[in-house]
Amino acid sequence: MNGSLIAESEATVSVFDRSFLYGDGLFETIRVYAGIPFRWEQHLQRLEAGAAFLGIRIPWNRAMLLAAGAELIAHNGLPEALLRLTLSRGVGPRGYSTRGANQPLLVMALHPAPLVDPENTGAWKLITSSVRIATSDRLATFKTNNKLTQILARSEAESQGANEALLLNTDGRFAEAASSNLFWLENEILCTTPLAEGLLAGVTRGFILELARDLGWAVTERSCRIHQLQQAAAVFLTACSFEILPASHLDGVPLRQSSSVRDLHRAYRKAVLKDR
Amino acid sequence: MNGSLIAESEATVSVFDRSFLYGDGLFETIRVYAGIPFRWEQHLQRLEAGAAFLGIRIPWNRAMLLAAGAELIAHNGLPEALLRLTLSRGVGPRGYSTRGANQPLLVMALHPAPLVDPENTGAWKLITSSVRIATSDRLATFKTNNKLTQILARSEAESQGANEALLLNTDGRFAEAASSNLFWLENEILCTTPLAEGLLAGVTRGFILELARDLGWAVTERSCRIHQLQQAAAVFLTACSFEILPASHLDGVPLRQSSSVRDLHRAYRKAVLKDR
Repeated sequence: MNGSLIAESEATVSVFDRSFLYGDGLFETIRVYAGIPFRWEQHLQRLEAGAAFLGIRIPWNRAMLLAAGAELIAHNGLPEALLRLTLSRGVGPRGYSTRGANQPLLVMALHPAPLVDPENTGAWKLITSSVRIATSDRLATFKTNNKLTQILARSEAESQGANEALLLNTDGRFAEAASSNLFWLENEILCTTPLAEGLLAGVTRGFILELARDLGWAVTERSCRIHQLQQAAAVFLTACSFEILPASHLDGVPLRQSSSVRDLHRAYRKAVLKDR
Repeated sequence: MNGSLIAESEATVSVFDRSFLYGDGLFETIRVYAGIPFRWEQHLQRLEAGAAFLGIRIPWNRAMLLAAGAELIAHNGLPEALLRLTLSRGVGPRGYSTRGANQPLLVMALHPAPLVDPENTGAWKLITSSVRIATSDRLATFKTNNKLTQILARSEAESQGANEALLLNTDGRFAEAASSNLFWLENEILCTTPLAEGLLAGVTRGFILELARDLGWAVTERSCRIHQLQQAAAVFLTACSFEILPASHLDGVPLRQSSSVRDLHRAYRKAVLKDR
Protein backbone atom coordinates (compact mmCIF):
# COMPACT_ATOMS: atom_id res chain seq x y z
CA MET A 1 0.00 0.00 0.00
CA ASN A 2 1.51 3.28 -1.19
CA GLY A 3 4.94 1.65 -1.24
CA SER A 4 4.94 -0.35 1.99
CA LEU A 5 4.73 -4.12 2.17
CA ILE A 6 2.12 -4.98 4.78
CA ALA A 7 0.19 -8.03 5.93
CA GLU A 8 -3.31 -8.64 4.56
CA SER A 9 -4.86 -8.22 8.01
CA GLU A 10 -3.37 -4.73 8.29
CA ALA A 11 -4.23 -3.66 4.76
CA THR A 12 -7.11 -1.31 5.49
CA VAL A 13 -8.43 2.01 4.22
CA SER A 14 -10.47 4.74 5.88
CA VAL A 15 -14.26 4.46 5.69
CA PHE A 16 -13.99 7.96 4.17
CA ASP A 17 -11.91 6.70 1.26
CA ARG A 18 -13.72 7.70 -1.92
CA SER A 19 -13.40 4.29 -3.51
CA PHE A 20 -15.25 2.80 -0.54
CA LEU A 21 -17.86 5.58 -0.66
CA TYR A 22 -18.30 6.00 -4.42
CA GLY A 23 -16.12 3.49 -6.27
CA ASP A 24 -14.02 6.55 -7.18
CA GLY A 25 -11.00 4.81 -8.64
CA LEU A 26 -9.62 2.30 -11.13
CA PHE A 27 -8.05 -1.13 -11.14
CA GLU A 28 -6.03 -3.55 -13.21
CA THR A 29 -5.68 -7.30 -12.85
CA ILE A 30 -2.48 -8.60 -14.40
CA ARG A 31 -1.54 -12.24 -14.93
CA VAL A 32 1.89 -13.10 -13.55
CA TYR A 33 3.68 -15.99 -15.30
CA ALA A 34 6.84 -17.39 -13.67
CA GLY A 35 7.15 -14.24 -11.59
CA ILE A 36 6.78 -11.79 -14.50
CA PRO A 37 3.65 -9.65 -14.97
CA PHE A 38 2.42 -10.29 -18.53
CA ARG A 39 1.69 -7.26 -20.76
CA TRP A 40 2.54 -4.96 -17.89
CA GLU A 41 2.99 -1.96 -20.21
CA GLN A 42 -0.47 -2.32 -21.72
CA HIS A 43 -2.10 -2.60 -18.32
CA LEU A 44 -0.28 0.48 -17.06
CA GLN A 45 -1.19 2.43 -20.18
CA ARG A 46 -4.85 1.66 -19.57
CA LEU A 47 -4.57 2.60 -15.90
CA GLU A 48 -2.87 5.86 -16.86
CA ALA A 49 -5.54 6.67 -19.46
CA GLY A 50 -8.29 6.06 -16.91
CA ALA A 51 -6.51 8.10 -14.25
CA ALA A 52 -6.13 10.99 -16.71
CA PHE A 53 -9.84 10.74 -17.57
CA LEU A 54 -10.92 10.76 -13.91
CA GLY A 55 -8.27 13.28 -12.87
CA ILE A 56 -6.59 11.00 -10.33
CA ARG A 57 -2.84 11.23 -9.87
CA ILE A 58 -1.03 7.86 -9.78
CA PRO A 59 1.16 8.24 -6.71
CA TRP A 60 4.02 6.00 -7.95
CA ASN A 61 5.96 6.09 -11.18
CA ARG A 62 6.21 3.02 -13.43
CA ALA A 63 9.57 1.89 -12.11
CA MET A 64 8.32 2.04 -8.53
CA LEU A 65 5.19 0.09 -9.48
CA LEU A 66 7.19 -2.63 -11.20
CA ALA A 67 9.65 -2.90 -8.29
CA ALA A 68 6.81 -3.13 -5.76
CA GLY A 69 5.12 -5.81 -7.86
CA ALA A 70 8.33 -7.84 -8.00
CA GLU A 71 8.79 -7.50 -4.24
CA LEU A 72 5.19 -8.65 -3.61
CA ILE A 73 5.61 -11.69 -5.87
CA ALA A 74 8.94 -12.66 -4.29
CA HIS A 75 7.77 -12.08 -0.71
CA ASN A 76 4.67 -14.23 -1.20
CA GLY A 77 6.52 -16.90 -3.20
CA LEU A 78 3.71 -16.80 -5.77
CA PRO A 79 5.16 -16.77 -9.30
CA GLU A 80 1.86 -17.90 -10.91
CA ALA A 81 -0.51 -15.22 -9.77
CA LEU A 82 -2.95 -12.43 -10.49
CA LEU A 83 -1.56 -9.05 -9.50
CA ARG A 84 -4.25 -6.51 -8.72
CA LEU A 85 -3.57 -2.78 -8.71
CA THR A 86 -6.29 -0.66 -7.12
CA LEU A 87 -6.12 3.11 -7.40
CA SER A 88 -8.42 5.26 -5.28
CA ARG A 89 -8.80 9.02 -5.24
CA GLY A 90 -8.37 8.65 -1.47
CA VAL A 91 -9.97 10.61 1.35
CA GLY A 92 -11.48 14.03 0.68
CA PRO A 93 -14.17 16.40 1.96
CA ARG A 94 -17.74 15.04 2.04
CA GLY A 95 -19.62 15.00 -1.29
CA TYR A 96 -19.04 14.25 -4.95
CA SER A 97 -16.71 17.18 -5.63
CA THR A 98 -13.13 15.99 -6.09
CA ARG A 99 -11.74 19.26 -4.74
CA GLY A 100 -9.50 18.72 -1.76
CA ALA A 101 -9.14 15.00 -2.45
CA ASN A 102 -5.46 15.11 -3.29
CA GLN A 103 -4.03 12.04 -1.58
CA PRO A 104 -4.59 9.12 -3.94
CA LEU A 105 -4.04 5.62 -2.65
CA LEU A 106 -2.50 2.74 -4.57
CA VAL A 107 -2.84 -0.85 -3.40
CA MET A 108 -1.21 -3.89 -4.98
CA ALA A 109 -2.36 -7.35 -3.97
CA LEU A 110 -1.53 -10.84 -5.15
CA HIS A 111 -3.97 -13.71 -5.67
CA PRO A 112 -3.19 -17.28 -6.78
CA ALA A 113 -3.73 -17.67 -10.54
CA PRO A 114 -6.69 -19.84 -11.51
CA LEU A 115 -5.70 -23.22 -12.96
CA VAL A 116 -6.51 -23.28 -16.66
CA ASP A 117 -5.99 -26.31 -18.89
CA PRO A 118 -6.25 -25.36 -22.58
CA GLU A 119 -6.83 -29.05 -23.42
CA ASN A 120 -9.86 -29.38 -21.20
CA THR A 121 -11.82 -26.25 -20.41
CA GLY A 122 -15.12 -28.04 -19.70
CA ALA A 123 -18.63 -26.67 -20.23
CA TRP A 124 -19.03 -22.92 -19.91
CA LYS A 125 -22.57 -21.64 -20.07
CA LEU A 126 -23.48 -18.10 -21.05
CA ILE A 127 -26.70 -16.16 -20.74
CA THR A 128 -27.75 -12.86 -22.28
CA SER A 129 -28.10 -10.51 -19.35
CA SER A 130 -31.13 -8.26 -18.95
CA VAL A 131 -28.70 -5.58 -17.72
CA ARG A 132 -27.51 -3.32 -20.53
CA ILE A 133 -24.58 -0.95 -20.84
CA ALA A 134 -24.95 2.48 -22.43
CA THR A 135 -23.43 2.35 -25.91
CA SER A 136 -21.71 5.73 -25.73
CA ASP A 137 -20.76 5.77 -22.02
CA ARG A 138 -17.10 6.81 -21.92
CA LEU A 139 -16.80 5.59 -18.32
CA ALA A 140 -17.47 2.01 -19.48
CA THR A 141 -14.32 2.12 -21.61
CA PHE A 142 -12.11 2.41 -18.50
CA LYS A 143 -11.59 -0.21 -15.80
CA THR A 144 -13.20 1.78 -13.00
CA ASN A 145 -14.21 0.71 -9.51
CA ASN A 146 -17.89 1.14 -10.47
CA LYS A 147 -18.74 -2.46 -11.22
CA LEU A 148 -22.33 -2.98 -10.09
CA THR A 149 -23.55 -3.47 -13.67
CA GLN A 150 -21.11 -6.34 -14.10
CA ILE A 151 -21.89 -7.74 -10.63
CA LEU A 152 -25.63 -7.76 -11.38
CA ALA A 153 -25.07 -9.44 -14.75
CA ARG A 154 -22.87 -12.13 -13.20
CA SER A 155 -25.42 -12.76 -10.43
CA GLU A 156 -28.12 -13.11 -13.05
CA ALA A 157 -26.04 -15.76 -14.86
CA GLU A 158 -25.35 -17.68 -11.66
CA SER A 159 -29.00 -17.57 -10.59
CA GLN A 160 -29.84 -19.29 -13.90
CA GLY A 161 -27.20 -21.99 -13.44
CA ALA A 162 -24.85 -20.41 -15.98
CA ASN A 163 -21.25 -19.27 -15.57
CA GLU A 164 -21.14 -15.87 -17.21
CA ALA A 165 -23.36 -13.17 -18.69
CA LEU A 166 -23.10 -11.36 -22.01
CA LEU A 167 -24.12 -7.72 -21.93
CA LEU A 168 -25.99 -5.97 -24.69
CA ASN A 169 -25.57 -2.25 -25.15
CA THR A 170 -28.52 0.14 -25.26
CA ASP A 171 -28.63 -0.32 -29.04
CA GLY A 172 -29.28 -4.06 -28.58
CA ARG A 173 -25.91 -5.31 -29.80
CA PHE A 174 -23.52 -7.45 -27.75
CA ALA A 175 -20.69 -5.49 -26.18
CA GLU A 176 -18.80 -7.84 -23.86
CA ALA A 177 -19.16 -10.34 -21.03
CA ALA A 178 -19.28 -9.24 -17.38
CA SER A 179 -15.56 -9.77 -16.87
CA SER A 180 -14.19 -10.65 -20.31
CA ASN A 181 -14.31 -9.87 -24.01
CA LEU A 182 -16.31 -11.73 -26.61
CA PHE A 183 -14.95 -13.49 -29.72
CA TRP A 184 -16.54 -15.78 -32.26
CA LEU A 185 -15.61 -17.58 -35.51
CA GLU A 186 -17.80 -16.67 -38.46
CA ASN A 187 -16.98 -18.09 -41.93
CA GLU A 188 -13.39 -18.75 -40.79
CA ILE A 189 -12.98 -15.16 -39.72
CA LEU A 190 -12.13 -14.38 -36.09
CA CYS A 191 -14.55 -11.69 -34.96
CA THR A 192 -14.80 -9.52 -31.86
CA THR A 193 -17.03 -6.57 -31.00
CA PRO A 194 -15.80 -3.05 -31.92
CA LEU A 195 -14.72 -0.75 -29.07
CA ALA A 196 -17.43 1.71 -30.17
CA GLU A 197 -20.05 -0.70 -28.77
CA GLY A 198 -19.15 0.66 -25.33
CA LEU A 199 -16.91 -2.10 -24.06
CA LEU A 200 -13.73 -2.17 -22.02
CA ALA A 201 -10.72 -2.73 -24.26
CA GLY A 202 -9.27 -5.87 -22.70
CA VAL A 203 -5.51 -6.23 -22.74
CA THR A 204 -6.03 -9.91 -23.57
CA ARG A 205 -8.45 -8.92 -26.35
CA GLY A 206 -5.69 -6.82 -27.91
CA PHE A 207 -3.17 -9.62 -27.51
CA ILE A 208 -5.49 -12.21 -29.12
CA LEU A 209 -6.06 -9.93 -32.11
CA GLU A 210 -2.28 -9.59 -32.58
CA LEU A 211 -1.69 -13.30 -32.07
CA ALA A 212 -4.39 -14.38 -34.55
CA ARG A 213 -3.02 -12.01 -37.20
CA ASP A 214 0.48 -13.45 -36.59
CA LEU A 215 -0.99 -16.94 -37.12
CA GLY A 216 -2.36 -15.80 -40.48
CA TRP A 217 -6.01 -15.79 -39.38
CA ALA A 218 -8.51 -13.40 -40.90
CA VAL A 219 -9.54 -11.03 -38.11
CA THR A 220 -12.23 -8.37 -37.90
CA GLU A 221 -14.24 -6.20 -35.53
CA ARG A 222 -17.92 -6.66 -36.21
CA SER A 223 -21.13 -5.74 -34.44
CA CYS A 224 -22.86 -8.75 -33.00
CA ARG A 225 -26.43 -9.90 -32.45
CA ILE A 226 -27.59 -13.20 -31.08
CA HIS A 227 -28.00 -15.06 -34.40
CA GLN A 228 -24.31 -14.55 -35.15
CA LEU A 229 -23.32 -16.34 -31.96
CA GLN A 230 -25.91 -19.08 -32.48
CA GLN A 231 -24.55 -19.74 -35.98
CA ALA A 232 -20.85 -19.27 -35.16
CA ALA A 233 -18.35 -22.13 -35.53
CA ALA A 234 -17.22 -21.24 -32.00
CA VAL A 235 -17.79 -18.59 -29.33
CA PHE A 236 -15.19 -17.82 -26.71
CA LEU A 237 -14.31 -15.32 -24.01
CA THR A 238 -10.93 -13.82 -23.24
CA ALA A 239 -9.50 -12.37 -20.04
CA CYS A 240 -6.03 -12.28 -18.58
CA SER A 241 -7.09 -14.55 -15.69
CA PHE A 242 -8.45 -17.54 -17.68
CA GLU A 243 -6.89 -16.58 -21.04
CA ILE A 244 -9.32 -18.22 -23.53
CA LEU A 245 -12.54 -19.98 -22.59
CA PRO A 246 -14.82 -21.60 -25.20
CA ALA A 247 -18.53 -21.23 -24.44
CA SER A 248 -20.68 -24.36 -24.52
CA HIS A 249 -24.17 -22.84 -24.30
CA LEU A 250 -25.90 -19.51 -24.78
CA ASP A 251 -29.28 -19.03 -23.09
CA GLY A 252 -29.57 -22.80 -22.73
CA VAL A 253 -28.87 -23.57 -26.40
CA PRO A 254 -25.67 -25.52 -27.23
CA LEU A 255 -23.07 -23.61 -29.25
CA ARG A 256 -20.86 -25.16 -31.89
CA GLN A 257 -17.34 -26.06 -30.86
CA SER A 258 -14.20 -25.72 -32.95
CA SER A 259 -10.73 -27.13 -32.39
CA SER A 260 -9.40 -23.81 -33.72
CA VAL A 261 -10.06 -22.26 -30.31
CA ARG A 262 -7.79 -24.82 -28.66
CA ASP A 263 -5.16 -24.15 -31.33
CA LEU A 264 -5.36 -20.46 -30.53
CA HIS A 265 -5.04 -21.19 -26.81
CA ARG A 266 -1.93 -23.33 -27.42
CA ALA A 267 -0.45 -20.49 -29.46
CA TYR A 268 -1.30 -18.10 -26.60
CA ARG A 269 0.63 -20.25 -24.13
CA LYS A 270 3.60 -20.46 -26.51
CA ALA A 271 3.63 -16.70 -26.93
CA VAL A 272 3.58 -16.25 -23.16
CA LEU A 273 6.60 -18.57 -22.80
CA LYS A 274 8.42 -16.69 -25.56
CA ASP A 275 7.65 -13.31 -24.00
CA ARG A 276 9.14 -14.37 -20.67
CA MET B 1 -19.26 0.27 12.43
CA ASN B 2 -21.40 -2.88 12.66
CA GLY B 3 -22.69 -1.73 16.05
CA SER B 4 -19.53 -0.43 17.72
CA LEU B 5 -18.78 3.23 18.36
CA ILE B 6 -15.21 3.86 17.20
CA ALA B 7 -12.96 6.85 16.56
CA GLU B 8 -12.63 8.17 12.99
CA SER B 9 -8.94 7.28 12.88
CA GLU B 10 -9.76 3.63 13.62
CA ALA B 11 -12.72 3.43 11.25
CA THR B 12 -11.16 1.37 8.48
CA VAL B 13 -12.18 -1.43 6.14
CA SER B 14 -10.18 -4.15 4.40
CA VAL B 15 -8.71 -3.35 0.98
CA PHE B 16 -10.64 -6.47 -0.08
CA ASP B 17 -13.96 -4.93 0.91
CA ARG B 18 -16.19 -5.03 -2.17
CA SER B 19 -17.31 -1.45 -1.83
CA PHE B 20 -13.66 -0.35 -2.02
CA LEU B 21 -13.02 -2.70 -4.96
CA TYR B 22 -16.27 -2.30 -6.93
CA GLY B 23 -18.53 0.23 -5.19
CA ASP B 24 -20.62 -2.82 -4.27
CA GLY B 25 -22.99 -1.24 -1.80
CA LEU B 26 -25.47 1.53 -1.04
CA PHE B 27 -25.71 4.65 1.06
CA GLU B 28 -28.10 7.16 2.56
CA THR B 29 -27.44 10.69 3.76
CA ILE B 30 -30.02 11.86 6.28
CA ARG B 31 -30.43 15.38 7.65
CA VAL B 32 -30.51 15.48 11.45
CA TYR B 33 -32.47 18.42 12.94
CA ALA B 34 -32.17 19.03 16.69
CA GLY B 35 -30.84 15.51 17.17
CA ILE B 36 -33.59 13.76 15.21
CA PRO B 37 -32.97 12.18 11.77
CA PHE B 38 -35.58 13.69 9.41
CA ARG B 39 -37.65 11.29 7.25
CA TRP B 40 -35.74 8.36 8.68
CA GLU B 41 -38.41 5.85 7.58
CA GLN B 42 -38.26 6.96 3.94
CA HIS B 43 -34.46 6.76 3.88
CA LEU B 44 -34.49 3.27 5.38
CA GLN B 45 -37.17 2.13 2.94
CA ARG B 46 -34.98 3.23 0.05
CA LEU B 47 -31.92 1.53 1.56
CA GLU B 48 -33.94 -1.66 2.05
CA ALA B 49 -35.25 -1.57 -1.52
CA GLY B 50 -31.71 -1.13 -2.87
CA ALA B 51 -30.35 -3.88 -0.62
CA ALA B 52 -33.08 -6.23 -1.84
CA PHE B 53 -32.26 -5.35 -5.46
CA LEU B 54 -28.53 -5.97 -4.98
CA GLY B 55 -29.03 -8.95 -2.69
CA ILE B 56 -27.17 -7.47 0.27
CA ARG B 57 -28.37 -8.26 3.76
CA ILE B 58 -28.63 -5.25 6.10
CA PRO B 59 -26.83 -6.51 9.20
CA TRP B 60 -28.86 -4.45 11.71
CA ASN B 61 -32.59 -4.14 12.18
CA ARG B 62 -34.33 -0.76 12.13
CA ALA B 63 -34.41 -0.35 15.90
CA MET B 64 -30.67 -1.04 16.16
CA LEU B 65 -29.95 1.44 13.37
CA LEU B 66 -32.01 4.16 15.02
CA ALA B 67 -30.39 3.52 18.42
CA ALA B 68 -26.90 3.60 16.91
CA GLY B 69 -27.71 6.85 15.11
CA ALA B 70 -28.94 8.44 18.34
CA GLU B 71 -25.79 7.28 20.15
CA LEU B 72 -23.58 8.73 17.41
CA ILE B 73 -25.38 12.10 17.51
CA ALA B 74 -25.23 12.29 21.31
CA HIS B 75 -21.61 11.14 21.55
CA ASN B 76 -20.46 13.73 19.00
CA GLY B 77 -22.69 16.48 20.40
CA LEU B 78 -23.81 17.27 16.86
CA PRO B 79 -27.61 17.77 16.78
CA GLU B 80 -27.51 19.61 13.41
CA ALA B 81 -25.83 17.08 11.18
CA LEU B 82 -25.81 14.84 8.16
CA LEU B 83 -25.94 11.19 9.12
CA ARG B 84 -24.44 8.92 6.51
CA LEU B 85 -25.19 5.20 6.37
CA THR B 86 -22.91 3.18 4.13
CA LEU B 87 -23.73 -0.45 3.42
CA SER B 88 -21.12 -2.66 1.76
CA ARG B 89 -21.41 -6.29 0.68
CA GLY B 90 -18.17 -6.74 2.62
CA VAL B 91 -15.21 -8.99 1.90
CA GLY B 92 -15.62 -11.99 -0.41
CA PRO B 93 -13.65 -14.20 -2.79
CA ARG B 94 -11.88 -12.43 -5.70
CA GLY B 95 -14.07 -11.50 -8.69
CA TYR B 96 -17.52 -10.11 -9.46
CA SER B 97 -19.49 -13.12 -8.22
CA THR B 98 -21.25 -12.34 -4.95
CA ARG B 99 -21.03 -15.97 -3.83
CA GLY B 100 -19.24 -16.33 -0.54
CA ALA B 101 -19.55 -12.61 0.27
CA ASN B 102 -21.86 -13.03 3.23
CA GLN B 103 -20.52 -10.57 5.78
CA PRO B 104 -22.04 -7.19 4.94
CA LEU B 105 -20.67 -4.12 6.65
CA LEU B 106 -22.65 -1.14 7.85
CA VAL B 107 -21.00 2.16 8.73
CA MET B 108 -22.71 5.22 10.19
CA ALA B 109 -20.87 8.53 10.23
CA LEU B 110 -21.82 12.06 11.21
CA HIS B 111 -20.89 15.26 9.39
CA PRO B 112 -21.76 18.84 10.38
CA ALA B 113 -24.85 20.06 8.50
CA PRO B 114 -24.17 22.73 5.89
CA LEU B 115 -25.44 26.16 6.89
CA VAL B 116 -28.42 27.06 4.70
CA ASP B 117 -30.24 30.39 4.90
CA PRO B 118 -33.57 30.25 3.02
CA GLU B 119 -33.61 34.07 2.91
CA ASN B 120 -30.29 34.33 1.15
CA THR B 121 -29.15 31.39 -0.92
CA GLY B 122 -26.89 33.40 -3.25
CA ALA B 123 -26.08 32.65 -6.88
CA TRP B 124 -26.11 28.99 -7.86
CA LYS B 125 -24.93 28.22 -11.36
CA LEU B 126 -25.87 25.10 -13.27
CA ILE B 127 -24.50 23.57 -16.43
CA THR B 128 -25.87 20.82 -18.64
CA SER B 129 -23.39 17.98 -18.27
CA SER B 130 -22.04 16.11 -21.28
CA VAL B 131 -22.31 12.95 -19.15
CA ARG B 132 -25.63 11.17 -19.64
CA ILE B 133 -27.45 8.55 -17.62
CA ALA B 134 -29.16 5.59 -19.26
CA THR B 135 -32.92 6.21 -19.23
CA SER B 136 -33.90 2.68 -18.31
CA ASP B 137 -31.00 1.78 -16.00
CA ARG B 138 -32.59 0.28 -12.89
CA LEU B 139 -29.33 0.71 -10.96
CA ALA B 140 -29.63 4.49 -11.29
CA THR B 141 -32.88 4.42 -9.34
CA PHE B 142 -31.06 3.23 -6.19
CA LYS B 143 -28.50 5.15 -4.13
CA THR B 144 -25.58 2.87 -4.87
CA ASN B 145 -21.89 3.33 -4.20
CA ASN B 146 -21.24 3.58 -7.96
CA LYS B 147 -21.09 7.33 -8.30
CA LEU B 148 -18.50 8.08 -10.98
CA THR B 149 -21.13 9.43 -13.37
CA GLN B 150 -22.17 11.99 -10.77
CA ILE B 151 -18.56 12.76 -9.82
CA LEU B 152 -17.65 13.40 -13.48
CA ALA B 153 -20.69 15.64 -13.96
CA ARG B 154 -19.87 17.65 -10.83
CA SER B 155 -16.24 18.03 -11.91
CA GLU B 156 -17.39 19.26 -15.30
CA ALA B 157 -19.56 21.92 -13.61
CA GLU B 158 -16.72 23.05 -11.35
CA SER B 159 -14.24 23.19 -14.22
CA GLN B 160 -16.62 25.64 -15.92
CA GLY B 161 -16.97 27.82 -12.83
CA ALA B 162 -20.45 26.49 -12.05
CA ASN B 163 -21.75 24.83 -8.89
CA GLU B 164 -23.72 21.87 -10.10
CA ALA B 165 -24.45 19.83 -13.23
CA LEU B 166 -27.78 18.71 -14.66
CA LEU B 167 -27.75 15.28 -16.27
CA LEU B 168 -29.67 14.38 -19.39
CA ASN B 169 -30.74 10.80 -19.93
CA THR B 170 -29.90 8.88 -23.09
CA ASP B 171 -33.19 10.11 -24.61
CA GLY B 172 -32.01 13.72 -24.25
CA ARG B 173 -34.36 14.76 -21.45
CA PHE B 174 -33.27 16.12 -18.08
CA ALA B 175 -33.30 13.53 -15.31
CA GLU B 176 -31.70 15.12 -12.23
CA ALA B 177 -28.69 17.02 -10.94
CA ALA B 178 -25.51 15.24 -9.84
CA SER B 179 -26.56 15.16 -6.19
CA SER B 180 -30.09 16.54 -6.15
CA ASN B 181 -33.48 16.53 -7.87
CA LEU B 182 -34.73 19.13 -10.31
CA PHE B 183 -37.87 21.29 -9.95
CA TRP B 184 -39.18 24.24 -11.94
CA LEU B 185 -42.23 26.50 -12.02
CA GLU B 186 -44.10 26.50 -15.32
CA ASN B 187 -47.37 28.48 -15.66
CA GLU B 188 -47.77 28.43 -11.85
CA ILE B 189 -47.44 24.65 -11.79
CA LEU B 190 -44.67 23.07 -9.76
CA CYS B 191 -42.95 20.54 -12.02
CA THR B 192 -40.38 17.84 -11.46
CA THR B 193 -39.04 15.09 -13.70
CA PRO B 194 -40.83 11.69 -13.66
CA LEU B 195 -39.03 8.75 -12.03
CA ALA B 196 -39.19 6.92 -15.39
CA GLU B 197 -36.51 9.31 -16.71
CA GLY B 198 -33.97 7.19 -14.84
CA LEU B 199 -33.43 9.33 -11.76
CA LEU B 200 -32.93 8.58 -8.10
CA ALA B 201 -36.13 9.19 -6.16
CA GLY B 202 -34.94 11.75 -3.63
CA VAL B 203 -36.52 11.61 -0.20
CA THR B 204 -36.58 15.42 -0.25
CA ARG B 205 -38.19 15.33 -3.71
CA GLY B 206 -41.02 13.25 -2.27
CA PHE B 207 -41.36 15.57 0.71
CA ILE B 208 -41.49 18.70 -1.48
CA LEU B 209 -44.24 17.18 -3.62
CA GLU B 210 -46.29 16.44 -0.48
CA LEU B 211 -45.60 19.87 0.97
CA ALA B 212 -46.54 21.76 -2.21
CA ARG B 213 -49.81 19.82 -2.48
CA ASP B 214 -50.54 20.64 1.18
CA LEU B 215 -49.96 24.32 0.35
CA GLY B 216 -52.53 24.06 -2.42
CA TRP B 217 -50.02 24.32 -5.27
CA ALA B 218 -50.63 22.64 -8.59
CA VAL B 219 -48.00 19.90 -8.90
CA THR B 220 -47.01 17.61 -11.77
CA GLU B 221 -44.32 15.29 -13.06
CA ARG B 222 -43.32 16.34 -16.54
CA SER B 223 -40.50 15.49 -18.91
CA CYS B 224 -38.09 18.35 -19.29
CA ARG B 225 -35.92 19.81 -22.04
CA ILE B 226 -33.77 22.89 -21.88
CA HIS B 227 -36.33 25.40 -23.19
CA GLN B 228 -38.64 24.62 -20.27
CA LEU B 229 -35.97 25.58 -17.78
CA GLN B 230 -34.97 28.67 -19.76
CA GLN B 231 -38.60 29.85 -19.78
CA ALA B 232 -39.49 28.74 -16.23
CA ALA B 233 -40.51 31.27 -13.56
CA ALA B 234 -37.94 29.56 -11.34
CA VAL B 235 -35.66 26.53 -11.34
CA PHE B 236 -34.49 24.92 -8.11
CA LEU B 237 -32.78 21.83 -6.78
CA THR B 238 -33.71 19.79 -3.73
CA ALA B 239 -31.62 17.55 -1.49
CA CYS B 240 -31.77 16.70 2.19
CA SER B 241 -28.45 18.47 2.82
CA PHE B 242 -29.27 21.95 1.42
CA GLU B 243 -33.08 21.50 1.31
CA ILE B 244 -34.06 23.91 -1.51
CA LEU B 245 -31.64 25.83 -3.69
CA PRO B 246 -32.79 28.23 -6.43
CA ALA B 247 -30.61 28.19 -9.55
CA SER B 248 -29.36 31.52 -10.87
CA HIS B 249 -27.90 30.45 -14.23
CA LEU B 250 -28.02 27.53 -16.65
CA ASP B 251 -25.14 27.16 -19.11
CA GLY B 252 -24.20 30.78 -18.47
CA VAL B 253 -27.68 32.19 -19.14
CA PRO B 254 -29.53 33.85 -16.21
CA LEU B 255 -32.68 32.07 -15.04
CA ARG B 256 -35.80 33.82 -13.80
CA GLN B 257 -36.25 34.02 -10.04
CA SER B 258 -39.49 33.72 -8.12
CA SER B 259 -40.28 34.53 -4.49
CA SER B 260 -42.46 31.40 -4.49
CA VAL B 261 -39.33 29.30 -4.05
CA ARG B 262 -38.47 31.17 -0.86
CA ASP B 263 -42.07 30.71 0.32
CA LEU B 264 -41.74 26.98 -0.27
CA HIS B 265 -38.44 26.90 1.62
CA ARG B 266 -40.02 28.70 4.59
CA ALA B 267 -42.84 26.15 4.56
CA TYR B 268 -40.23 23.39 4.44
CA ARG B 269 -38.56 24.72 7.57
CA LYS B 270 -41.92 25.03 9.35
CA ALA B 271 -42.80 21.45 8.46
CA VAL B 272 -39.45 20.26 9.81
CA LEU B 273 -40.12 22.04 13.14
CA LYS B 274 -43.62 20.52 13.28
CA ASP B 275 -42.32 17.03 12.52
CA ARG B 276 -39.83 17.15 15.38
